[in-house]
Amino acid sequence: MDIQQLVRELKIENKSKIVMLVADGLGGLPIEPGGPTELEAAKTPNLDALAKRGVQGSMNPIAPGITPGSGPGHLGLFGYEPVKYLIGRGALEATGVGFKLGPKDVAIRCNFCTLDANGNICDRRAGRIPTEESGPLAIKLRQVKIPGVEVFVEPVKEHRFVVIFRGEGLAGNVADTDPQKTGVPPLDPVPHNDASKRTAEIAKQFVAQAQKLLAGEKKANGLTMRGFSAAPVIPSYQEVYGLKAAAIAVYPMYKGLAQLVGMELVGEPTTLSEEIDVLEKAWNDYDFFFVHFKYTDSRGEDGNFPEKVRMIEQFDAIIPRVAALNPMVLIVTGDHSTPARLASHSWHSVPTLLVSETCRPDGLTAFNEKAALHGGLGQFQAVYLMPLALAHAERLAKFGA
Amino acid sequence: MDIQQLVRELKIENKSKIVMLVADGLGGLPIEPGGPTELEAAKTPNLDALAKRGVQGSMNPIAPGITPGSGPGHLGLFGYEPVKYLIGRGALEATGVGFKLGPKDVAIRCNFCTLDANGNICDRRAGRIPTEESGPLAIKLRQVKIPGVEVFVEPVKEHRFVVIFRGEGLAGNVADTDPQKTGVPPLDPVPHNDASKRTAEIAKQFVAQAQKLLAGEKKANGLTMRGFSAAPVIPSYQEVYGLKAAAIAVYPMYKGLAQLVGMELVGEPTTLSEEIDVLEKAWNDYDFFFVHFKYTDSRGEDGNFPEKVRMIEQFDAIIPRVAALNPMVLIVTGDHSTPARLASHSWHSVPTLLVSETCRPDGLTAFNEKAALHGGLGQFQAVYLMPLALAHAERLAKFGA
Repeated sequence: MDIQQLVRELKIENKSKIVMLVADGLGGLPIEPGGPTELEAAKTPNLDALAKRGVQGSMNPIAPGITPGSGPGHLGLFGYEPVKYLIGRGALEATGVGFKLGPKDVAIRCNFCTLDANGNICDRRAGRIPTEESGPLAIKLRQVKIPGVEVFVEPVKEHRFVVIFRGEGLAGNVADTDPQKTGVPPLDPVPHNDASKRTAEIAKQFVAQAQKLLAGEKKANGLTMRGFSAAPVIPSYQEVYGLKAAAIAVYPMYKGLAQLVGMELVGEPTTLSEEIDVLEKAWNDYDFFFVHFKYTDSRGEDGNFPEKVRMIEQFDAIIPRVAALNPMVLIVTGDHSTPARLASHSWHSVPTLLVSETCRPDGLTAFNEKAALHGGLGQFQAVYLMPLALAHAERLAKFGA
Repeated sequence: MDIQQLVRELKIENKSKIVMLVADGLGGLPIEPGGPTELEAAKTPNLDALAKRGVQGSMNPIAPGITPGSGPGHLGLFGYEPVKYLIGRGALEATGVGFKLGPKDVAIRCNFCTLDANGNICDRRAGRIPTEESGPLAIKLRQVKIPGVEVFVEPVKEHRFVVIFRGEGLAGNVADTDPQKTGVPPLDPVPHNDASKRTAEIAKQFVAQAQKLLAGEKKANGLTMRGFSAAPVIPSYQEVYGLKAAAIAVYPMYKGLAQLVGMELVGEPTTLSEEIDVLEKAWNDYDFFFVHFKYTDSRGEDGNFPEKVRMIEQFDAIIPRVAALNPMVLIVTGDHSTPARLASHSWHSVPTLLVSETCRPDGLTAFNEKAALHGGLGQFQAVYLMPLALAHAERLAKFGA
């Protein structure tokens, strides 16, 4: 069954508000056997109060055992089957810096690197060169000219930048050039099929010219390319759900993801508190609000259990401000788990909470992984979260007579 | 979503070991209202100790309400969608006795029976004729000659044997000839479609010649045919998961099933204890070990509740030897339920336990049907067991950027 298609047919528009708070990488693991997870260790009086009013569930972002990247993780939360709607890294990164991808574009996520005299990679990330220094280098690469194709180069952060080729007959199916190790030269951009031959050829020309432009640079004299990708074709939130949706996020990737499903970026917050300021200000202008909190994931990726606990507590602290807006449906979830113990994304399910006046109480009094196992939503797939939200927002008609 | 395809794309090879212990027909029912199931009645200190370290779930082999045969039950455990990969009984039996089926083969599971003077069946299983007597009869049938087709006849156990036709234009879609009752003659082999007409015709010739060869025999003078089946095309464990897999089993059918997915048969154990001897000896040579224990199912099929309890306790007793090998992932499950109360396979979910250092504790302290309902894996489909095992074995890459 295509649940999104069904929802699309049943949607009703009304004035209700839905808020989805995403604490990135929320789910965790005990740092030592027998101990609590990060969420169990954190003092979360506000989330626990919500747990008494809502229903919990243990959510699989993709499927049991599958560890999602940020793209598929968020698409699932937004109700789009992640395996159906694949977004390349390049497309994600381009959208994240505000570049509007068109149908003739192929975007490539690039890294500055350092090369030795033989052209072998010394540092795959050019010592994580600061953004102030990498930005001008990326701008310099705008001098690259390739006949028959428009070339765009956009700085991102640190060693990252994005290149977009615009022209006829381009395709995303080209192999990454990052060899994933040092002491060897970057790989050639190899096309995976006939349709992507021209793109690979253009990429090769780009690298050759870029290498010359960077030749004298001390901090970064080379580049690698990955995630060659055309713009994905994704139906919008408005189209699918009838929702005017706002995205409130600090980091480019999440802004990009939200824009790909047709959300509007609101404000330019730099902290969680500022994100809630933006939410309050925009309250009357949208139906749906996606609010992204990055640092639960960051501290998980760092392998820093106590700091992830602290980030969860910071997240908990803003809950009263959100609850005070009195959304018809309030969701608290994550796009995947990032246990500090693993210092990476993981496949473990994500504790998820939905609060609405129409929730059937599940008797839980705390919000965490163990509680979520016994919640009213059971174990469920991420793509069912939006249908549930819409139902509680009275935005779905009865199916069938 | 085709989860196996996704896993195939994400697989990583490493040195980790995965053990899947299958207690056939593990799940049960109370023999009387209010009583325990077989697994709840059994003293299982070792399984309960594992439960404290792992996660449990209540596994549906196929789908709620569907009772699996051994073939689909195991295919689900192995991660192959059982409705997609159908294996005929004949193919299963042939593989089980070590016959390598080729693409031009059709295999048929046959039973010796006894016929009266009018050709009506007296005993559908020829009094469960002992293997020592049925073997030579099966060998005698190798005298059957059919123009244009090679005929193989292989003894199995007791009244069972298997016939393989090899030739051009054969197909499996032929009706069983066992009328499932006595006092009537065996049915004709009727083709279900045009493609299987030739096979049905050959089967008719085989029966005619076989009947003559058996005419003077006292213990068995007839035969029935069932499960006409071509060799199934199933991608191997190596291909799909990148796993070098060993199968350790006593009974032919399970050996056959394992071989169909590309596992190698290891050792020739005749008891559970010998199976674990084999496991220990082969430990360094494989990535994945399927260990099959038959007698939980057999005693369930017998309707013998106390003996099934005893078999579960025997199974529990070998757990420390397996755990001592320290596999990265240890799974305890069954291919279906076989409640003694029903004396047959059933559709009830199967308590399943996965133990790994990366399990998120679910707070359970015993392994049984009731506990499994509250486990970290929730209610889940069998095809997700292998993805979970691979994830915990660090054998799956992140999906998407």
